[in-house]
Amino acid sequence: MRLGILGLGLIGASLAKAVRPSQLYSEIVGYGHRQTTVQTALEQGIIDRAVSSAAELVSQCDLVLIATPTLLAEQQLVELIGHANQLERPPVLTDAASVKGNLWRAIDALELPQWPSFVVLGHPIAGSEKSGVHAARADLFDRHRVILTPQSSTDPTAIAVVTELWEAAGAEVMTMSVQLHDQVLAATSHLPHMLAYALVETLATSDLADDIFQFAAGGFRDFTRIASSDPVMWRDIALANRTELLLALDQFSAGVQRLRTAIEAEDTPTMTAIFERAKGSRDDLLSKLDRSSQQD
Amino acid sequence: MRLGILGLGLIGASLAKAVRPSQLYSEIVGYGHRQTTVQTALEQGIIDRAVSSAAELVSQCDLVLIATPTLLAEQQLVELIGHANQLERPPVLTDAASVKGNLWRAIDALELPQWPSFVVLGHPIAGSEKSGVHAARADLFDRHRVILTPQSSTDPTAIAVVTELWEAAGAEVMTMSVQLHDQVLAATSHLPHMLAYALVETLATSDLADDIFQFAAGGFRDFTRIASSDPVMWRDIALANRTELLLALDQFSAGVQRLRTAIEAEDTPTMTAIFERAKGSRDDLLSKLDRSSQQD
Repeated sequence: MRLGILGLGLIGASLAKAVRPSQLYSEIVGYGHRQTTVQTALEQGIIDRAVSSAAELVSQCDLVLIATPTLLAEQQLVELIGHANQLERPPVLTDAASVKGNLWRAIDALELPQWPSFVVLGHPIAGSEKSGVHAARADLFDRHRVILTPQSSTDPTAIAVVTELWEAAGAEVMTMSVQLHDQVLAATSHLPHMLAYALVETLATSDLADDIFQFAAGGFRDFTRIASSDPVMWRDIALANRTELLLALDQFSAGVQRLRTAIEAEDTPTMTAIFERAKGSRDDLLSKLDRSSQQD
Repeated sequence: MRLGILGLGLIGASLAKAVRPSQLYSEIVGYGHRQTTVQTALEQGIIDRAVSSAAELVSQCDLVLIATPTLLAEQQLVELIGHANQLERPPVLTDAASVKGNLWRAIDALELPQWPSFVVLGHPIAGSEKSGVHAARADLFDRHRVILTPQSSTDPTAIAVVTELWEAAGAEVMTMSVQLHDQVLAATSHLPHMLAYALVETLATSDLADDIFQFAAGGFRDFTRIASSDPVMWRDIALANRTELLLALDQFSAGVQRLRTAIEAEDTPTMTAIFERAKGSRDDLLSKLDRSSQQD
């Protein structure tokens, strides 16, 4: 079985490193936009061979992972489906992008006779503030979750092939609907990033910015860590998951408003109830997360 | 010089431990609400002697630190000023509460002939998720900032005595106005706590709560860590700093609204500008914080 990887950044290169010891793949073939990245991947033995176009991955491999940024992945997925549909035996196509709905809609817009049975959309819940081939780590997915969002017409063999890929990288694979995936990620990842960005930007543009940043302490540092994430990546994620993100933002704003009303009215029972419910949920979550030691 | 400490929890007991080696104080006298706490403080040599009322600290000591929760501190400060005003040579009175405006207003409401010159309101920017005498650490204030908010009528000697106290604990002492203190703390500490509580509570009461908490990853954990803080302590801080906190909440909500509008309109230049400004400020802050290694 030949594995093709489109995009040799943190995710693609880490996956190649992670599955190498399994010997599941006779060859790992890569395609990257930048020649220096491809060169590094070859020199470090991350890939066995490079091809000169994404289309060649489709014609030469049994399984192709698209590991490029969210909006680029959307465009490339459509292109690769076009190439794959020319073939008698198309490879399994999968991806690692943070949003699934935009990919689903892009495929839907192709108005194919049926959903391409060889496509399995997926998302590894793993990452790092670092990016690029030099940041690649064989253990990036170890004990992390991967969510697959197959359709009813997806070939069960294709699902098995993608499951095997991520399990070889040490991940735990589960499936859910495209919509639930995007709702859950909006709430737990995309919304917090937007709030951290909005908070830091609001404070940075305040009249008191100098005093505020001078006295910002450790709690503030943790709370705003994710505001140091890559702006372009997060712009694309926000656009790709726009509908669910706006809903999550509105739910959060309503929650803030309830708390604001309670503080303004000095309604101490409501304030205490909100804080206690939050602390209880957070403490439960903490003990679960500490067990699974995940990170996003 | 005799040091009196009212409240033998994390802050009071840590300060006693921290200043002991300096030998600045001939005796460290404590008063605590709970007998078991007082007993522990005596047994561990944190205090030399316990008294049976807060009033005795005022009559027997040269410097008294009120180290009790925010709203209790307000009530006790008023009581201790009453006792001190009976004395020919009142001790210096200071505190360690998270909000200064409520204390200032409580003193102002006494309508004394003049602001008590022996009172120096202060706030060490240090803490821990743990609390109580058992969590006390001699290095809690080491290289942390302490903000004092003296008035124009405050006795310079009183300011010097309080400065000496915190410097003996390894802290860096600075002064600012009551209002600026409360504005800065609202932005950097009180607001983030409210947002973390509101976010976790909103998600916990959502229809998707089970899925959301099952898939919450590391970024979410950091972002919501402060939602595990003590609900009663934070209810009191929110009440004490209500005016500044509501202003900070409204500024933040306006910032979120600007970002929401940009996402809804798919206004990518505005989205990118917000994210980049936030990342730039956050990265600057991070390098400063890493140097000073503060925590709140």
